[in-house]
Amino acid sequence: MKCTVCRGPAVIDLRRHNANFCPEHFLRFCRDQVVRAIDDHGMMAPGQRVLVAVSGGKDSLALWDLLVELGYDAEGMVIGLGIGDYSDASTAAAVAFAEQRGLRLHRIDLRGEYGYDIPTASAVTRRVPCSSCGMSKRHLIDKAALDGGYDVVATGHNLDDEAAVLLGNVLHWQTEYLGRQEPVLAERPGFPRKVKPLVRLAERETAAYCVLRGIDYMVEECPMAAGNRHLRYKAALDEIEAASPGTKHAFYFEFLARAADRFRPEAAAAQEGLTPCTSCGAPTTGEVCAFCRLVERVGGREPVPVELVRPGRRRGKARKAGAAT
Amino acid sequence: MKCTVCRGPAVIDLRRHNANFCPEHFLRFCRDQVVRAIDDHGMMAPGQRVLVAVSGGKDSLALWDLLVELGYDAEGMVIGLGIGDYSDASTAAAVAFAEQRGLRLHRIDLRGEYGYDIPTASAVTRRVPCSSCGMSKRHLIDKAALDGGYDVVATGHNLDDEAAVLLGNVLHWQTEYLGRQEPVLAERPGFPRKVKPLVRLAERETAAYCVLRGIDYMVEECPMAAGNRHLRYKAALDEIEAASPGTKHAFYFEFLARAADRFRPEAAAAQEGLTPCTSCGAPTTGEVCAFCRLVERVGGREPVPVELVRPGRRRGKARKAGAAT
Repeated sequence: MKCTVCRGPAVIDLRRHNANFCPEHFLRFCRDQVVRAIDDHGMMAPGQRVLVAVSGGKDSLALWDLLVELGYDAEGMVIGLGIGDYSDASTAAAVAFAEQRGLRLHRIDLRGEYGYDIPTASAVTRRVPCSSCGMSKRHLIDKAALDGGYDVVATGHNLDDEAAVLLGNVLHWQTEYLGRQEPVLAERPGFPRKVKPLVRLAERETAAYCVLRGIDYMVEECPMAAGNRHLRYKAALDEIEAASPGTKHAFYFEFLARAADRFRPEAAAAQEGLTPCTSCGAPTTGEVCAFCRLVERVGGREPVPVELVRPGRRRGKARKAGAAT
Repeated sequence: MKCTVCRGPAVIDLRRHNANFCPEHFLRFCRDQVVRAIDDHGMMAPGQRVLVAVSGGKDSLALWDLLVELGYDAEGMVIGLGIGDYSDASTAAAVAFAEQRGLRLHRIDLRGEYGYDIPTASAVTRRVPCSSCGMSKRHLIDKAALDGGYDVVATGHNLDDEAAVLLGNVLHWQTEYLGRQEPVLAERPGFPRKVKPLVRLAERETAAYCVLRGIDYMVEECPMAAGNRHLRYKAALDEIEAASPGTKHAFYFEFLARAADRFRPEAAAAQEGLTPCTSCGAPTTGEVCAFCRLVERVGGREPVPVELVRPGRRRGKARKAGAAT
């Protein structure tokens, strides 16, 4: 297998691009894809202050590394989610990365600062862990970006992530979500600008990027996400992609080019009626935002060990096998 | 396992409905679902003359049986596609069904009347067999319905079919196809009204219906369709449905309820500029319609045996593994 660019020994084949690359040209390919994503979607400009949402996994560390390489003033933020050893190791990977490169990493610990962790939130609310986890992370990164005066929040969502989210949104025709599934979310009152510079790179490519750059990332997947819908949608798309390379790319980018606009009205309507949370000031549809309600409900509860929370479970009726969805 | 209706022994469980049925109540369920599809979408009215597109498989024979049971004046039409033993056995199943019930079955043989068969068309055009097969069937059923003065053509597309087609259409955001993927296609100049009364029934249910009704259908799938995209999309949706029963139903019916309208403009625009084929009079975008062009190109060619045509193959560049799509 030879590099498509220099004919030297290739280390990776990218079927959807009908190309193989040596380490040097693969790293250049990754940078080019990120530059193109930033340019095509007008994500951000050099000199802007970027806050990178860091988990310690391959995507967020590759993203941080790439943005720094490209000359962005990028600081990181990692949240201690309290998901046992998984969270400890993830945070440690993020800390080690930052220290080695002399980068600034902001740390927040859910249990230390808000009195709860994700397993406990999931057990108390009887909801899938991913629900309170995603909401908590979004709330805290938004707050940190606004409080810290950053120009933009960058997250490590890759092509596989976005295609799987899109599949979930079309399978249920979540028109509001379809109307705001974009690689850029503009700044709005109470929300920072948010961008996804890795949307042109596949999961396998961000992993290879980390390996070739010597980035020591957290390899394990979150134990609480096992069996969730998002991973099922990814697996379904993986099968299709294997037979027809390029399908994920077409699915996501043709959506943006030819369908997304048709769902904007619902997304815009959902943005109307938002008012500041009476407790923290974040935009919300009710009086008190979902984050403050969660803290109110689970803050200060004794920790529930990860092993006692069934991953991927759903609450109520839908938990029974055979229930119609 | 007990019947949800009568508590007698059940023979089938329908997870997406959270129900089990005995033979009697399963057959009633199938009839109810067809009646509901016909009513919800205003497909047709009793007394109308219906032409059923019959293949000899479970879906088309179940459909024909159900329509006759429901009192429709339904005649069948079967097309000899020339796909070796598969076509012979399929036609034989359709003929036997019609004879047993004293129903009228119209027969057309591609080779006998138009001088070609599907394997030969595929080999000569170097396209997937499903391409010339689908086009030929659509053309001939439309022609037969118009020539015979039928009010409506009924096809056996079930929920799995429609969901898989929808998945293919969204994966590539085929906006024109999305705009006309409906259970009813209205009559237009050169096109008969077309309806899909089985859209509320899954493939497994039409098979069970045939078994319980003693309908001897062609069980084997078409050998030339093996490995095609449609079957891959079905398999992907099957995996998701197994974990979340009801997903296919929601995917298809929520699309109709909340998204289909957004794609109508493209479908309508594609209908504009159609003019009559200079050879046969059927609506076409060019001078001569695709069917007449196919007959011109492959009519009278020596038959190519099924075994010599690689199923599911694609032509040109895209046939190479690794080509981007």
